[in-house]
Amino acid sequence: MINEMNTIGRHYRLTSFGESHGAALGGVVDGCPAGEELSLEGIQKELDRRRPGQSAWGSTRQEADRVELLSGLLEGKTTGMPIGFVVRNGDCRPEDYEALREVYRPSHADYAWEMKYGVRDWRGGGRASAREHVARVVAGAIAKQVLGRRGIRVVGYVSQVGSVVLPERIVPETVEEVDRQAVRCPDVETAGRMEKVLEEARRAGDSVGGVVSCRILGLPAGLGEPVFDRFQACLAYAMMGINGAKGFEYGMGFRAAGMRGSEHNDAFVLQDGKVAVATNRSGGIQGGVTIGEEAYFRVAFKPVASIARRQKTVNRKGEEVELEVKGRHDVCVAPRAVPVVEAMAAMTTLDLLLAARISRL
Amino acid sequence: MINEMNTIGRHYRLTSFGESHGAALGGVVDGCPAGEELSLEGIQKELDRRRPGQSAWGSTRQEADRVELLSGLLEGKTTGMPIGFVVRNGDCRPEDYEALREVYRPSHADYAWEMKYGVRDWRGGGRASAREHVARVVAGAIAKQVLGRRGIRVVGYVSQVGSVVLPERIVPETVEEVDRQAVRCPDVETAGRMEKVLEEARRAGDSVGGVVSCRILGLPAGLGEPVFDRFQACLAYAMMGINGAKGFEYGMGFRAAGMRGSEHNDAFVLQDGKVAVATNRSGGIQGGVTIGEEAYFRVAFKPVASIARRQKTVNRKGEEVELEVKGRHDVCVAPRAVPVVEAMAAMTTLDLLLAARISRL
Amino acid sequence: MINEMNTIGRHYRLTSFGESHGAALGGVVDGCPAGEELSLEGIQKELDRRRPGQSAWGSTRQEADRVELLSGLLEGKTTGMPIGFVVRNGDCRPEDYEALREVYRPSHADYAWEMKYGVRDWRGGGRASAREHVARVVAGAIAKQVLGRRGIRVVGYVSQVGSVVLPERIVPETVEEVDRQAVRCPDVETAGRMEKVLEEARRAGDSVGGVVSCRILGLPAGLGEPVFDRFQACLAYAMMGINGAKGFEYGMGFRAAGMRGSEHNDAFVLQDGKVAVATNRSGGIQGGVTIGEEAYFRVAFKPVASIARRQKTVNRKGEEVELEVKGRHDVCVAPRAVPVVEAMAAMTTLDLLLAARISRL
Amino acid sequence: MINEMNTIGRHYRLTSFGESHGAALGGVVDGCPAGEELSLEGIQKELDRRRPGQSAWGSTRQEADRVELLSGLLEGKTTGMPIGFVVRNGDCRPEDYEALREVYRPSHADYAWEMKYGVRDWRGGGRASAREHVARVVAGAIAKQVLGRRGIRVVGYVSQVGSVVLPERIVPETVEEVDRQAVRCPDVETAGRMEKVLEEARRAGDSVGGVVSCRILGLPAGLGEPVFDRFQACLAYAMMGINGAKGFEYGMGFRAAGMRGSEHNDAFVLQDGKVAVATNRSGGIQGGVTIGEEAYFRVAFKPVASIARRQKTVNRKGEEVELEVKGRHDVCVAPRAVPVVEAMAAMTTLDLLLAARISRL
Repeated sequence: MINEMNTIGRHYRLTSFGESHGAALGGVVDGCPAGEELSLEGIQKELDRRRPGQSAWGSTRQEADRVELLSGLLEGKTTGMPIGFVVRNGDCRPEDYEALREVYRPSHADYAWEMKYGVRDWRGGGRASAREHVARVVAGAIAKQVLGRRGIRVVGYVSQVGSVVLPERIVPETVEEVDRQAVRCPDVETAGRMEKVLEEARRAGDSVGGVVSCRILGLPAGLGEPVFDRFQACLAYAMMGINGAKGFEYGMGFRAAGMRGSEHNDAFVLQDGKVAVATNRSGGIQGGVTIGEEAYFRVAFKPVASIARRQKTVNRKGEEVELEVKGRHDVCVAPRAVPVVEAMAAMTTLDLLLAARISRL
Repeated sequence: MINEMNTIGRHYRLTSFGESHGAALGGVVDGCPAGEELSLEGIQKELDRRRPGQSAWGSTRQEADRVELLSGLLEGKTTGMPIGFVVRNGDCRPEDYEALREVYRPSHADYAWEMKYGVRDWRGGGRASAREHVARVVAGAIAKQVLGRRGIRVVGYVSQVGSVVLPERIVPETVEEVDRQAVRCPDVETAGRMEKVLEEARRAGDSVGGVVSCRILGLPAGLGEPVFDRFQACLAYAMMGINGAKGFEYGMGFRAAGMRGSEHNDAFVLQDGKVAVATNRSGGIQGGVTIGEEAYFRVAFKPVASIARRQKTVNRKGEEVELEVKGRHDVCVAPRAVPVVEAMAAMTTLDLLLAARISRL
Repeated sequence: MINEMNTIGRHYRLTSFGESHGAALGGVVDGCPAGEELSLEGIQKELDRRRPGQSAWGSTRQEADRVELLSGLLEGKTTGMPIGFVVRNGDCRPEDYEALREVYRPSHADYAWEMKYGVRDWRGGGRASAREHVARVVAGAIAKQVLGRRGIRVVGYVSQVGSVVLPERIVPETVEEVDRQAVRCPDVETAGRMEKVLEEARRAGDSVGGVVSCRILGLPAGLGEPVFDRFQACLAYAMMGINGAKGFEYGMGFRAAGMRGSEHNDAFVLQDGKVAVATNRSGGIQGGVTIGEEAYFRVAFKPVASIARRQKTVNRKGEEVELEVKGRHDVCVAPRAVPVVEAMAAMTTLDLLLAARISRL
Repeated sequence: MINEMNTIGRHYRLTSFGESHGAALGGVVDGCPAGEELSLEGIQKELDRRRPGQSAWGSTRQEADRVELLSGLLEGKTTGMPIGFVVRNGDCRPEDYEALREVYRPSHADYAWEMKYGVRDWRGGGRASAREHVARVVAGAIAKQVLGRRGIRVVGYVSQVGSVVLPERIVPETVEEVDRQAVRCPDVETAGRMEKVLEEARRAGDSVGGVVSCRILGLPAGLGEPVFDRFQACLAYAMMGINGAKGFEYGMGFRAAGMRGSEHNDAFVLQDGKVAVATNRSGGIQGGVTIGEEAYFRVAFKPVASIARRQKTVNRKGEEVELEVKGRHDVCVAPRAVPVVEAMAAMTTLDLLLAARISRL
């Protein structure tokens, strides 16, 4: 895995650019294998899943989020050349943020970035905004199409919002199943309770955290590059690079810390003459490499930092001030983070699928 | 962050090599700034902290683990050239593993690596063994010395073994404080209970999981490179590349998922005329960049896969067999993982400290 | 230096995309330091220098080549964020190339790329066209502005066209001096003879080769990263990645092979109390690192492969055929390659200037 | 191609360490495919070809140059794990260089490196010495074995020493043919004249430059990654990173600048039903990608900077002084550079062979 600031991936790579209230978001996908049929509609569909303005508790910003592919295709197929793309920003309102030029919003990137760069784009957080994820969704959608043709699918879902937790036994098989609920929790009853929490928080001018779970299905054995580019390390890197992510775990995760080896080990067995695991507590990865079973993991998200309440903070002159954040913000990032988590998982998987092809000649 | 299989880091880089029962472990540290005084003793001391054979419930393998630096130094100071180093293996017993040539140990790298490479080094797990961490401890020890001179310290400790959890209010300030207990838990009473759990598991021929917590103190603001090389993403990558790691979280971590924004946000205040946070739930990182406060995180480790009990598995011929693993294994990796977690944290921090120097000219 | 297919540079990086007859050329500049004032006009000026349609013996394609910067700037200054940019293609005539779908043009990328990718963009060579250099000129122009503020200038010029060679003693000091002649040779008399050669070749439906020489002035000592990322190695890589480049040499170049050490060595002397070289046969680089003197080098370009004569070749069906290439082609690439050579030199220099800042802490 | 200071290569990678008069030279080869049989003898043989002390006009330093492989092999085959190796220095004489601690040798790395790092290893040039090439020869020897098994061979030879030039029509087919002459020129008569030049220069306390030519035979079509990682750009980078290299050209090289397109273009023809070129002026590469023909190139080397004559220079105190360099130096690097050029060519070729495997899935 090669990652440099705004580029992620070693073989399948996204270089991303753009700010929340700038001219456009965009990026370049490099290393996509030649000869792959790409459905532009399929890419747009993924963008639509992340698009704001679709629920009461999501951001009310109105964006068409139409993607334009600028290169790398000939007659609907990839040519092995880089795929440049642009998504124009429409509903910009930098004026909403004018008041924030001189103030550091609590738990936002404002103060940190200004210390680092000596300057910061105050227009809606600039590049620190989750709107940057648009580029990832495009690159992930392309990866999904390449993977899908090889039987590999990624299914993400919301498994926790605030204190409401999806029972572990409920596990969705398809994206459709998940997307049926606006909150992207595959269980109707739990989804209902989550929506209530979201609505309450919205009314209180507050926000809530959540957890996105994700499954990668149809994985062949052999993906992951020891010792540093383990499958789980690459996944963790990709997930912890999403705005608001505070934790990553796979397999039994933190719960494994409380277990004994005899409880945790996965016995190998034969299933239809093939090696398989009786249980899959390993999360489909052993020694950093996939074993031909499903990989699954969870990502914790903090509550959105932008809340409609007065908060104490400091301004650029070094004075303590009170602040009320305006703008159009999600109450909880988890539902809209689902396609982003999936995108990052798809990119990581394709990257390591390519890497695995040169482990032997 | 640039990471490629056996190299980690973008500016400060370790390339690691070696197998558990091969001739030697070793590596190359590239990108260490010139003119830094290095104490060889200081490096050896870190290796000694990780060395096996020091407790009843650790591996009983006897290794001197003497490091030899082969290049990159002149009269005790770094020259800006790569630092090659070797740690010879002494107490090899490949014969202990002879029986494992044809069998896949459950929840080990055996099966996955053989699927990937068509071959695997069966001698003590080869490079999949945690003995590879020796190279990381050397590179981390060098990084610690460079950081220490600039007031940055890394303190790791065991905060959970099986079901015994260190109370959160107990937080160690120094490595010495932690190392006073063999189990590397800074609280004597908790440490005692942890040792009991370890002893029980050892007698039962079983193993247990654990959690290592870690603090990075003295951090300046401005470390971390958005949008992918966020401080937390680089840390997560580094930690999830340690053997047995199943989860990573920083700041409030998974607990943040259950919180509200009004509870989680860190108000900015003035302290002695300088900007500070009233609380530090962010874990010292906002927008992927350090804010000049302590960074802290936790890493969950699964129970060691090598247990002295009969287990079901499959052999290379595709037959179901029973297996009893021999060899000299830790009951819990957490205590000896502390210097490894610290090493990875130090390398990551130095890497991003260097990166931050070129954010502006 | 980190280079991956369509990305060049380690700290200052260009990721380029786009095809000759596709929607647009473009790219992303990542790693540009924050706080740098950028003149959009200055960037456009460089593009204009490379623009086709400006002479009888250059391509007659008409392109406005207007660059649009999409991100990374706030109030005219860089923010440390990636700078995405697009240059729309206007005068596309894929139909000119329709006849070439099934034929491999001699000494073009056609056959090689089809063997590699199984597919190729036949529309004007697709991405194999020198039109891709547009992205490099943009990234180079940004680098030039950052370097210029620090007293570093790059001056390229045509020193050979066919058999007409510029006398070595004539060395231009400024870009203006060079650009005064359409052929970009700083000597009026030689330029006149070059133009004659170009005109003759054009009439004959033929093309000619040439050499571009380049100076980097105002360099500080200390740029270049031993042992692989030597200043000259990075320059060579950058130059040999330009379309049509067949050779690179710096300092005495190939002539050094015929010299003796006593003739070639540069004595160190004191000038105004500072260390300097009495001669500069080294080309400003010793041990891979700049010594604070001018660096100079030469790049040889082959004659353009597209000629208006019948040529023998083979088609995709594996039949020998005769071919006459249409389209709008330069007679010699050297004049329009000057801004490209400069752009690659500027990017390389800025990249190594950034690297040099972390050689010591 | 990913290159970072002391690491070269993207998929097949060498990380090199060590100084001329330090404890050892060594390195790590990462990315070597699993399952490859390696002959240690074959590696040693390549080192022996580069070993000093074998001729009157080569360095008289006595080194056994025995390589020890420390990892990455099991029962004579690669396992996909990194291959660490060490070559101990024997005949160190730092005392020979004691007098040079305070003086900058003309046209050496001394001054440049001290400006860069604030410190330099004065012992025989430290890491700036060509002795560092030992690591490259090891990594190249491994690459040669992997390539050889797939029908790809690299043959380098000396084509110029001072003013003595090998007639172009003489082209060696095998390494054995070349190595028959100590000067590594495949023509007995020319070799004799070259030796005379070397002997004369030696007696005069002087040195001479030279040219190494190289052929890569048996190449498949499709190697090279547009647009930056072109085969020729990667070769140029690798070659210009060799000590003393001043120029690189492939195919017609600088001569192409004086040619017309109608003279230079290679017509495609059918040979035994397969596409081939009637001529190969392209040097086997079109559009940056191999076409299934031989690739050939030339590297110019300057005369060795260490000469046994008094020279003017400056010392660290900033005083002009006279200097007479001692130590054991080659009169001309070209003969011993042949295995280094081959090694770099082999590494580059294997790297791009691996890259080509993931251009399509």
